[in-house]
Amino acid sequence: MRATRFFISTLKEAPADAEIVSHKLMMRAGMIKRLGSGIYNYMPMGLRIIRKVENIVREEMNRAGAIEMLMPVVQPAELWQETGRWDKMGPELMRVKDRHGRDYIIQPTSEEAITDVIRTEIRSYRQLPVNFYHIQTKFRDERRPRFGLMRGREFTMKDAYSFDRNVEGMQKSYEIMYDAYTRIFQRFGLEFRAVAADNGAIGGSGSHEFHVIADTGEDALVYCPTSDYAANMEAAEALPTQTSRPAATAALTKTATPGKAKCEDVAQLLNIPLETTVKSIVLAVDAEKDSGKAAQIWLLLLRGDHELNEVKAGKIAGMANYRFATEAEIVEHFGTKPGYLGPIGTIKPVNIVADRTVANMTDFVCGANEADFHFTGANWGRDLPEPVVADLRNVVAGDPSPDGKGVLAIQRGIEVGHVFQLGTRYSDDMKATFLDENGKPQLLQMGCYGIGVTRILGAAIEQNFDDKGIIWPTAIAPFEVVICPMGMDRSEAVKTEAESLYHALLASGIDVILDDRGERPGAMFADWELIGVPHRIVIGDRGLKEGKLEYLGRRDTEASNVPVAEMLAFIQAKMAAK
Amino acid sequence: MRATRFFISTLKEAPADAEIVSHKLMMRAGMIKRLGSGIYNYMPMGLRIIRKVENIVREEMNRAGAIEMLMPVVQPAELWQETGRWDKMGPELMRVKDRHGRDYIIQPTSEEAITDVIRTEIRSYRQLPVNFYHIQTKFRDERRPRFGLMRGREFTMKDAYSFDRNVEGMQKSYEIMYDAYTRIFQRFGLEFRAVAADNGAIGGSGSHEFHVIADTGEDALVYCPTSDYAANMEAAEALPTQTSRPAATAALTKTATPGKAKCEDVAQLLNIPLETTVKSIVLAVDAEKDSGKAAQIWLLLLRGDHELNEVKAGKIAGMANYRFATEAEIVEHFGTKPGYLGPIGTIKPVNIVADRTVANMTDFVCGANEADFHFTGANWGRDLPEPVVADLRNVVAGDPSPDGKGVLAIQRGIEVGHVFQLGTRYSDDMKATFLDENGKPQLLQMGCYGIGVTRILGAAIEQNFDDKGIIWPTAIAPFEVVICPMGMDRSEAVKTEAESLYHALLASGIDVILDDRGERPGAMFADWELIGVPHRIVIGDRGLKEGKLEYLGRRDTEASNVPVAEMLAFIQAKMAAK
Repeated sequence: MRATRFFISTLKEAPADAEIVSHKLMMRAGMIKRLGSGIYNYMPMGLRIIRKVENIVREEMNRAGAIEMLMPVVQPAELWQETGRWDKMGPELMRVKDRHGRDYIIQPTSEEAITDVIRTEIRSYRQLPVNFYHIQTKFRDERRPRFGLMRGREFTMKDAYSFDRNVEGMQKSYEIMYDAYTRIFQRFGLEFRAVAADNGAIGGSGSHEFHVIADTGEDALVYCPTSDYAANMEAAEALPTQTSRPAATAALTKTATPGKAKCEDVAQLLNIPLETTVKSIVLAVDAEKDSGKAAQIWLLLLRGDHELNEVKAGKIAGMANYRFATEAEIVEHFGTKPGYLGPIGTIKPVNIVADRTVANMTDFVCGANEADFHFTGANWGRDLPEPVVADLRNVVAGDPSPDGKGVLAIQRGIEVGHVFQLGTRYSDDMKATFLDENGKPQLLQMGCYGIGVTRILGAAIEQNFDDKGIIWPTAIAPFEVVICPMGMDRSEAVKTEAESLYHALLASGIDVILDDRGERPGAMFADWELIGVPHRIVIGDRGLKEGKLEYLGRRDTEASNVPVAEMLAFIQAKMAAK
Repeated sequence: MRATRFFISTLKEAPADAEIVSHKLMMRAGMIKRLGSGIYNYMPMGLRIIRKVENIVREEMNRAGAIEMLMPVVQPAELWQETGRWDKMGPELMRVKDRHGRDYIIQPTSEEAITDVIRTEIRSYRQLPVNFYHIQTKFRDERRPRFGLMRGREFTMKDAYSFDRNVEGMQKSYEIMYDAYTRIFQRFGLEFRAVAADNGAIGGSGSHEFHVIADTGEDALVYCPTSDYAANMEAAEALPTQTSRPAATAALTKTATPGKAKCEDVAQLLNIPLETTVKSIVLAVDAEKDSGKAAQIWLLLLRGDHELNEVKAGKIAGMANYRFATEAEIVEHFGTKPGYLGPIGTIKPVNIVADRTVANMTDFVCGANEADFHFTGANWGRDLPEPVVADLRNVVAGDPSPDGKGVLAIQRGIEVGHVFQLGTRYSDDMKATFLDENGKPQLLQMGCYGIGVTRILGAAIEQNFDDKGIIWPTAIAPFEVVICPMGMDRSEAVKTEAESLYHALLASGIDVILDDRGERPGAMFADWELIGVPHRIVIGDRGLKEGKLEYLGRRDTEASNVPVAEMLAFIQAKMAAK
């Protein structure tokens, strides 16, 4: 490509609404341009990157035996009513009425559409397994779109759907996709991590998320550096910090803690470690509507320095639809306001669940259910009954790994892929069956597998940038190499060498751009550093006199001189190493 | 590709709602699958064709200097309000509200979006000309979607937009696109014709349509076989059938024509040629709303065997918003009901316009404005004043060509491309300007250029099919070659040769599918004839014993034997000739 035949549009300043680095840099580099809230034009420079991402995804999906098709953007509501998602999904599902008043949605995902295809196309076990995917525009009406392509409303997703005759088949299809995803992210040249995930609202029985590692990531990833354990924070199991409970040594004592409503303040006042305190979290589960019954009240106990994991709380039997209790409910049951609550001496009975760590604590401190007072020296079995025990908390760095093979570490990540075992979640609602060897209809076992194609761009930048701009991995860079001739209009020698090298690189299949715009060197270099092309070759009269060209890798701090005759081989070697 | 790794799904019968051959064949060949009204899944077999069409379009657009980007499917209503199309476009514009109640549209085309990009990106004449295109999902909420991909609601279009500093530049950009389109349709391997078109509602000053020739086409194309004149019916100029008017020879005579309300019947009754009769068409133009004035009545006169061209009627000064007159209006002005109307002796004054051919008629027959009576021997200047003359009619085969170089012929076509000179239609409304050499802001001169990517599939089939199925041109066939091994599971020799030929063809860059499904030969051959793969190679034990393979081109009536060792070269020669 010649720069004069392309469209390059860089900005010194990012627009004010760009909050995070990837959004700022993509705007400044002219890769995206806002059309509306959460809706972006993919400018020529950005589209090249998207296409490279798509092509890697496509090649690896094909290699894994998945078959490409294309499902529509606009889909009939009837299908979404069949699975109940028409009602269950909130306003993030974009709904449309056509000229006849019939309901449609702009697809955020395509489980319903593919299951509709499959239930008529797949008749026999002999047609299984099968895996279809498409790379298509999606829409999710985010309440507050922001961060550019990271949380936009219109975006491109690759979504694949496998169908199998039984659970073992589904698990096999899932493994094939897991492996394909691993190859895809390896080929992108990004540091990533696959973590076990909670299945959430989509249902089903197993899932992993693929995250691009970045300090600015929204998600906390838990992993064990000495084993292959990895899970997202929601799903990471927290073991007790000590495996058994020491014997009690202190007496239960009601202690004045005036104005000290937080564990941190109590610990400081009493000059004790925060790890000896227990905090009380009061949740409520409403009774069935119109039953006339009051809500059930639950008291969850966590060590003072630990945090509640809200997903885990929802998994306690009977707590699927919990909410936080109101102050009135708290006063009614505990006789005092939040800040001094505890499991000993509530005025109405509540369901008490202790985190695994709390259950092994001895001589602990907790609220006395009286304003400005705490108990010290509290002990299970003596001062209060043995509790119901559950995993309630977020893990912290240094916790023992659930696989017993070390201690946990935490890093930040950006979710860009997700693989899911769905089982019969959709085939059941939509009656998607096949005939087995005995001619009996059976429900199809389904898996789904997404990659946020446009989100990859944002995540790659959050991982790879410096104060000059973006640093693309070669595999997904808009161009692999840029040739920057200095004074191309004045120097015949520079022009001749630039054209010659340009054609040599093109001929060897390298994606090169020749910057023939005639910009000053400073502006030209700044543009390409901002855009993030990984390999730069500068051609100047001075170097040519010595038979040299200048090479600078985007992460290099110093340029190196390469003899003119060797540059092609030099770049080819760089490409081979990518 | 191996058939067992692909998804092949053919049907013996097309669904009942498939009315035209391309719709039937695409459904039967498993290329598309209906998801909703006018909304189709592109199945793997169909998507391959779409991608080949897209790639040819992309290569030629890039070669012509256009730059690819991608604009969103969902676009803010504000932009469409700026140009007035939010109001002007009817219910075919799909409108959506987001969760905050803000208006959006699902794009049917992107003039507004690209002009919004350009008005901030283009600042100087030095950045011009520029031409951006994208290949993107479109939606048009057709009142009655039908014919599969020919008149669907969701479809894929390539739309390009050029911006120039002046009209000459725009015309140059237009010519470049016209030439690129010509190459694109040539590369598709389809018989096509570019015709001058009426500009219609989109505005602007010049346009051509690209049609795929097919007997089943909706549009009539007018062309001169002995010159390069070509226009669609709406735009084709009709010259008078005789260049001057002979002198009158007959007297005006009121003649009884009881019950003969049509020219054909009158001619038969009076035993005269239909070409001597004149028919009357009464139109009305409403006065401005609330003006209290009655509608203006117009009488258009056409030779008995000619048809009104409604587009041309709308171009008569004062008739832009015409409608057909009501019977009440006709009776009020002519004193009689339709069937016996004419220009002589109306009871209220009407505006009379004669078609060019009618203006040169002598001794003609027309209604006498009295039930069951016509005039014969009517003559201009003697029996009624010389008329206002205009081109009012559709041309017919045999008419003189407007360029004076022969006579016109008519064929049917399917519109699949359109190039338009828009001028400042959008840049004016949206204030898209650039600074000229003198630093003065000037409006950008715009052109737009569309190709109906998915529609091409339907059009190609309407042009190329037989009773067995589709006949794809090689360039856009889902596969170029199919290898059909007979008894691959039984014969090691067949299997070995099939695999060997498959790999040899793949290695030479040929898009080949190996049918390894193990179907019976009859079913296998029927599938590939239905799907329309242009080149078929059959491998069987009998042939192999003689060192022969069987080749059949999709249009061939008889297979030919090709020595095993020559098959690769034989196919390569076919590809080179494509």
